[in-house]
Amino acid sequence: MSTKWLDEIHWTKDGLVPVIAQDATSGKVMMLAWMSRESLALTAEEGRAVYWSRSRGRLWRKGEESGHVQRVKSIRLDCDNDVVLLGIDQVGGIACHTGRESCFFQELRGDEWVAVDPVRKPPEEIYAKK
Amino acid sequence: MSTKWLDEIHWTKDGLVPVIAQDATSGKVMMLAWMSRESLALTAEEGRAVYWSRSRGRLWRKGEESGHVQRVKSIRLDCDNDVVLLGIDQVGGIACHTGRESCFFQELRGDEWVAVDPVRKPPEEIYAKK
Repeated sequence: MSTKWLDEIHWTKDGLVPVIAQDATSGKVMMLAWMSRESLALTAEEGRAVYWSRSRGRLWRKGEESGHVQRVKSIRLDCDNDVVLLGIDQVGGIACHTGRESCFFQELRGDEWVAVDPVRKPPEEIYAKK
Repeated sequence: MSTKWLDEIHWTKDGLVPVIAQDATSGKVMMLAWMSRESLALTAEEGRAVYWSRSRGRLWRKGEESGHVQRVKSIRLDCDNDVVLLGIDQVGGIACHTGRESCFFQELRGDEWVAVDPVRKPPEEIYAKK
């Protein structure tokens, strides 16, 4: 399989591209994370979102700990070839490490950020103690 | 009005934050661009999207040339306080400089990016010659 499609992406100096994950059914924007060339290739190959964790400096198979895997339905690229949009099915209905559906649960009300979405499952039930 | 909500954002080293613009009605993801502290403050104040153009190094009032203004209905922040999500009404139904509704019009089909969305208005009709 040709990797020309990967060459067409305008990677950052760090070799990354920002990736928006959107629920393919509801249209809800779940999160933004980053992918390296390798992680995007794996995402296409495996049909599940594989990000590059900048904080941990390694591949991050979304759901590897929580089970909240993102099944990839579509991969889109923007007009500048520097942002990727994934259409996903969110296993468990939870994308956020706080146990909420989406990471974008804080809304500006007046001059304050307010957490407006419910926690679907407490994090301590999602992440097993080690 | 307090600007504490701006202090709570984790800005990049360049003083920017990535911003996703999503159609508030259809849920379509239109684009990703960047905002500075000043441009986000203006966005909240004016109720229209004001980005920071990294290529031009200046404030960019979306629609200033094209008329394709984005009216802001909601401003959300993610769990890491480093990505903003705008719910917008897209004036003219076109966010992309190519004349398409969304900037994410290229879809990966096999190993090729294919332009899958129609041009709603030719760019030469959107941008007046100077």
